[in-house]
Amino acid sequence: MKSLVDRGAQVHALSLRSHAWIPQVVAHAGNLLDPRYVRQLVEETRPDTILHAAWNVEHGKFWTAPESIDWAGATLTLARAALDLGVRRFVGVGTCFEYRWPDDANCDELCTAIDPTTLYAVAKDASRRVVEALDGLSFAWARLFYLYGPFEHERRLVASLARSLARNEPALLTQGLAIRDFLDVRDAGDALAALVLSNVCGPVNIASGTGESIASIAYRLGRISGRSHLLRPGALPDRTDEPPRIVAEVKRLKSEVGFEPTRSLERGLADAYSWWCARTSTPQ
Amino acid sequence: MKSLVDRGAQVHALSLRSHAWIPQVVAHAGNLLDPRYVRQLVEETRPDTILHAAWNVEHGKFWTAPESIDWAGATLTLARAALDLGVRRFVGVGTCFEYRWPDDANCDELCTAIDPTTLYAVAKDASRRVVEALDGLSFAWARLFYLYGPFEHERRLVASLARSLARNEPALLTQGLAIRDFLDVRDAGDALAALVLSNVCGPVNIASGTGESIASIAYRLGRISGRSHLLRPGALPDRTDEPPRIVAEVKRLKSEVGFEPTRSLERGLADAYSWWCARTSTPQ
Repeated sequence: MKSLVDRGAQVHALSLRSHAWIPQVVAHAGNLLDPRYVRQLVEETRPDTILHAAWNVEHGKFWTAPESIDWAGATLTLARAALDLGVRRFVGVGTCFEYRWPDDANCDELCTAIDPTTLYAVAKDASRRVVEALDGLSFAWARLFYLYGPFEHERRLVASLARSLARNEPALLTQGLAIRDFLDVRDAGDALAALVLSNVCGPVNIASGTGESIASIAYRLGRISGRSHLLRPGALPDRTDEPPRIVAEVKRLKSEVGFEPTRSLERGLADAYSWWCARTSTPQ
Repeated sequence: MKSLVDRGAQVHALSLRSHAWIPQVVAHAGNLLDPRYVRQLVEETRPDTILHAAWNVEHGKFWTAPESIDWAGATLTLARAALDLGVRRFVGVGTCFEYRWPDDANCDELCTAIDPTTLYAVAKDASRRVVEALDGLSFAWARLFYLYGPFEHERRLVASLARSLARNEPALLTQGLAIRDFLDVRDAGDALAALVLSNVCGPVNIASGTGESIASIAYRLGRISGRSHLLRPGALPDRTDEPPRIVAEVKRLKSEVGFEPTRSLERGLADAYSWWCARTSTPQ
């Protein structure tokens, strides 16, 4: 939201519970799963553009949670309200899990096969298909890859490693050979804002475009913290169903949207580590 | 519905306005687009199986009508209610327009590419994708091809030809070279009932499996009516965007569901012609 405000947009934000965003943002508390409320809000606020990023993403559960059906429905309801009420542009948020990841190439928005396998990714992809087929909306679909940064769920990779190191505890991980595309969540916010305010249509990967192994991420955090000796690579079993490589092609983001991340992985991880240090009382 | 009752099923039917179905059917009047009503109805009736055939199919308009978004949403809402309330089986109704029709082969549920191009077909296909990805429901998806029979909209092919012939008026058509798969709507009802009461999962074509040109259908109706002289092939311009062939592979319907149509095309068209005769005051 800050990224949008910084770019001169007037921003209204909808969340389930009332939330103190930055002062320039008009906050609305309401349920996006309630079709009548949604329509009324669009009617009252008459936005030029809607950025729809809401979904059920409860850590460890969201892949198969039936709530994805509700969120697909809510996405369609919101798009229909947008169309009826003259909203010009609609940007939805998808996921790298919509792709069939190639082992030896980056995921490209236009060439890589779409082949979601979880209810979560199927429902995201199906929402995209329907809204994209609708005449009368400028429509883009932001496919997020791996994000990390402040306020991350403590059981996600970067957060769990940074937190363990900050607490001076052993940081357990797998062998960590899988290659992933990590982006600082603040850069992801900037990229989304740039996409929202552009006229680029269709799917756009929001990612760094650079792959790095999980092990390498861990070693960076070890070095940053000065506590590499706490890393325990191989302490957790490798997951046999993990694809070896999930990395984005970012040509569209770079040349069409005109966005490049400003934070290096090194800098982003250092910030994440500091963030966890500030929230952790280190056992001595 | 008669087909289901004949097969021993207890049937509850939901339609927008109150409707006198056959006596064995319990009629409910309500709006499937109202999520609360839908949930309440499933809760009250506790069906073992739901057959969901409702959609916006207003002749000439439904391909691009935004109502398809609402119906996709309603399909998801109904499936979610089914899952939550212990419904065992869910059968939805799709369309041959989900396929990328091969020019020289039949559309096969498992091999033919899915490539819907209209909002209608995209929304149908997207609904199928989501419900199919949901764990906990026995799920089948009936893909209808070309239907004809009693109560057909008078501007659809068989109805418009039969009606013109019954009224002793010229029956205009294109050159009619396109090959289509036509099934009597009564056989389609029987096939749906058989699918509903089976345990077959996934997409199943509901069709005859036999292609016939539009011109040939017209000539049959001409012969049946004894008024072939009224046929005007070529009087309407050919549509350049019409695919040459849309014919179903029906192996799944025949061998897995165990269904074969009982009405030949000749018999079905004769019945359709009689139906229009009974409703037409012929100018002399």
